[in-house]
Amino acid sequence: MKIFYNDILTNEKREKLFSREKISNEELYSVIQPILNDVKKNGNNAVLKYAKKYDNYDSSQILITNKELKSAANKIDTELKKVINKAYTQIYKFHKCQKPKNYKIQTIAGVTCRREFFSIENVGLYIPGGNTVLISTMLMLGIPAKIAKCKRIVVCSVVKDNEINSGLAYAALKCGVNEFYAIGGAQGIAMMAFGTETIKKVDKIFGPGNQYVTAAKNLVSIDDDGCIIDMPAGPSEVLIIADEFADPCFIAADLLSQAEHGNDSQVILLTTDEKLITKVTEAITKQLKILPRNSFAENSLKKSFILLVNSIKEAVALSNNYAPEHLIINTKNAVKVSSQIKNAGSVFIGAYSPESAGDYTSGPNHSLPTNGYAKATGGVSVESFLKPITFQTLTKRGLKRISNTVIKLAEAENLEAHANAIKIRL
Amino acid sequence: MKIFYNDILTNEKREKLFSREKISNEELYSVIQPILNDVKKNGNNAVLKYAKKYDNYDSSQILITNKELKSAANKIDTELKKVINKAYTQIYKFHKCQKPKNYKIQTIAGVTCRREFFSIENVGLYIPGGNTVLISTMLMLGIPAKIAKCKRIVVCSVVKDNEINSGLAYAALKCGVNEFYAIGGAQGIAMMAFGTETIKKVDKIFGPGNQYVTAAKNLVSIDDDGCIIDMPAGPSEVLIIADEFADPCFIAADLLSQAEHGNDSQVILLTTDEKLITKVTEAITKQLKILPRNSFAENSLKKSFILLVNSIKEAVALSNNYAPEHLIINTKNAVKVSSQIKNAGSVFIGAYSPESAGDYTSGPNHSLPTNGYAKATGGVSVESFLKPITFQTLTKRGLKRISNTVIKLAEAENLEAHANAIKIRL
Repeated sequence: MKIFYNDILTNEKREKLFSREKISNEELYSVIQPILNDVKKNGNNAVLKYAKKYDNYDSSQILITNKELKSAANKIDTELKKVINKAYTQIYKFHKCQKPKNYKIQTIAGVTCRREFFSIENVGLYIPGGNTVLISTMLMLGIPAKIAKCKRIVVCSVVKDNEINSGLAYAALKCGVNEFYAIGGAQGIAMMAFGTETIKKVDKIFGPGNQYVTAAKNLVSIDDDGCIIDMPAGPSEVLIIADEFADPCFIAADLLSQAEHGNDSQVILLTTDEKLITKVTEAITKQLKILPRNSFAENSLKKSFILLVNSIKEAVALSNNYAPEHLIINTKNAVKVSSQIKNAGSVFIGAYSPESAGDYTSGPNHSLPTNGYAKATGGVSVESFLKPITFQTLTKRGLKRISNTVIKLAEAENLEAHANAIKIRL
Repeated sequence: MKIFYNDILTNEKREKLFSREKISNEELYSVIQPILNDVKKNGNNAVLKYAKKYDNYDSSQILITNKELKSAANKIDTELKKVINKAYTQIYKFHKCQKPKNYKIQTIAGVTCRREFFSIENVGLYIPGGNTVLISTMLMLGIPAKIAKCKRIVVCSVVKDNEINSGLAYAALKCGVNEFYAIGGAQGIAMMAFGTETIKKVDKIFGPGNQYVTAAKNLVSIDDDGCIIDMPAGPSEVLIIADEFADPCFIAADLLSQAEHGNDSQVILLTTDEKLITKVTEAITKQLKILPRNSFAENSLKKSFILLVNSIKEAVALSNNYAPEHLIINTKNAVKVSSQIKNAGSVFIGAYSPESAGDYTSGPNHSLPTNGYAKATGGVSVESFLKPITFQTLTKRGLKRISNTVIKLAEAENLEAHANAIKIRL
């Protein structure tokens, strides 16, 4: 990891340091758009064509039947089943507090207005599959969908060698998934967004994926025939704030657990302690050796950095400006420091709160905003699977009471027919 | 308006009837993308170039100073000021109930998790200006932004002939707008999304606009340098469900108040009463004559339709499938009918609840999902200007309690470094 000193950085250099690596979207989009168009036009045939091309999928089966799913789930290892159940319980417990309240008020006598939340009926969950099957993501998306009582929960996930991952099958069934498709990639996103001759389109798509999946999600979200998506996504990130009381081995392990995700993961350490920097880099070198995915980690670390700051306050300001997906606060007064956080996806407070605890089981969601989007949006929640509808009932006297306001404002906007809809009633 | 009978429609024809007219997005996007790229690269110069080209804006002033805004607001007509204040009060009253609650729980002993909502710091509101200045939209976006305590509320709105609309200026100041820019169109969206040499970029953009504005919003929402947006948008829509007890003049007025918005507005009437159809069409002809914007209304009506259905239940099913932006229920048991609604932006219940009441002052927001997006999202709300952050604090014993779950799941996903971040701590 590169090491910098905040004191001697120019504003320009600091800005460059914290700016995320950008992918050339336009190029990526020009590759993905034709795939989407093809699936929109040619349905399942196109889906299978791209699954074969990009995932070596050599079956003509798109839907995994419930029977097949159950049969796969039955093969689950007893210990894995036990920990999935435990994680499920904790994630469920945290998310079930998220159901928003309906309300009803009179805004003026005779004008009764209310707001009520409804489930999104058809939701599509993209679960990365293939070599690394993300069972935890199945729980993180499936549990809030289940709490929100979504009627139809669709999953898309690449199935390798016709062997459905038993842990994923078990988790999917536990979350109440109704339809499971053995398709991933842009073709999986297109299939859910547009529908095909056998698959009904969904209303919203959730879930992480590689850059092709992300590009496909973005493109269907701005296509009139497509659907909305949970949030825009980029490579995963962690920022750690640490002082002289932090254990360098813990920090090294946390940096590496983010770095192993992929070549493009972003990890940043901000610290007030110069000695800690040496100790952390030594610990990283030591820990890297024993990791099976160390080539990913090494590549990410090359692009990552440690910054020496003058105070924790300075670190907090830099972090709020960066808006990391994950923020670990490993300082003496971590709780106090956390009260100054304004922009982050999820915050891990104190020495014994590593990101990986939250990735799997603490309770909060792990589908979080990256690329600075934490300034504007939070992670996936039960509300992400609901939508509010507003209702209003006016009595004749209520309408009379507001009539002058509506008519004057409509006339100020040159919308005479709007005014007329009031006048004609009174 | 064309008239159809649901009984004799084939499924295919019915589907076609209810399908919205699609704009060729790809073509539109290819026109707008270069404008966005230019503003991203060349800042204010590019902004002014396109403002001159598309809006005949012949000034070099982008920012309207607070002094200028106040001076414009002071010129407001007394009666208009009074009704803006009245509308403000009702809209404020409805929206202030929308602040979501923070919460904190232990998901297991030693694992404390909480969720807290924070304001989005920088928000950009696009307010259609020029010939029709939407003062009401200023209130509908500004009020929830103010309730959410957004620190920096930016407005973009075309100013015609260097004359700032006094009603808009008054409403903007009342909502606490900090920065007001005299720029509209795609260049206005680009300016807010990317920032320029004098303007700091915003975190989220809200507001309606023509097809160019909508295309620009969509494109910045999938640009890594851009920002997220409130929702995708299309032409405005109303669907009315009516029975034999409905007054045909009311229905005609409601259809026309939607139709006058623009050539592409969508209006639909579903009724169980064949006689009502004749009466409504007669009333439309009569009312059309006196409307200043009747050319817009006539164009929209040509593409719109009335459908005779067998029952209100049938009408509700069709409406839930269409998911209209606005739904008016003008039937005898309107409240009961409304309890069956599952997909709609905003619902108007009974004979004295016209859409225009809600467009201006009833209380609920008028920025609503079109194009069927009401299946997946609601209108703009206070929550649209907030984002949740999750926090977790684990004790050493808490971490120990969940350690086996994390380690087993991490190993099942081949993420050894995730497991190691736990092992190293215990």
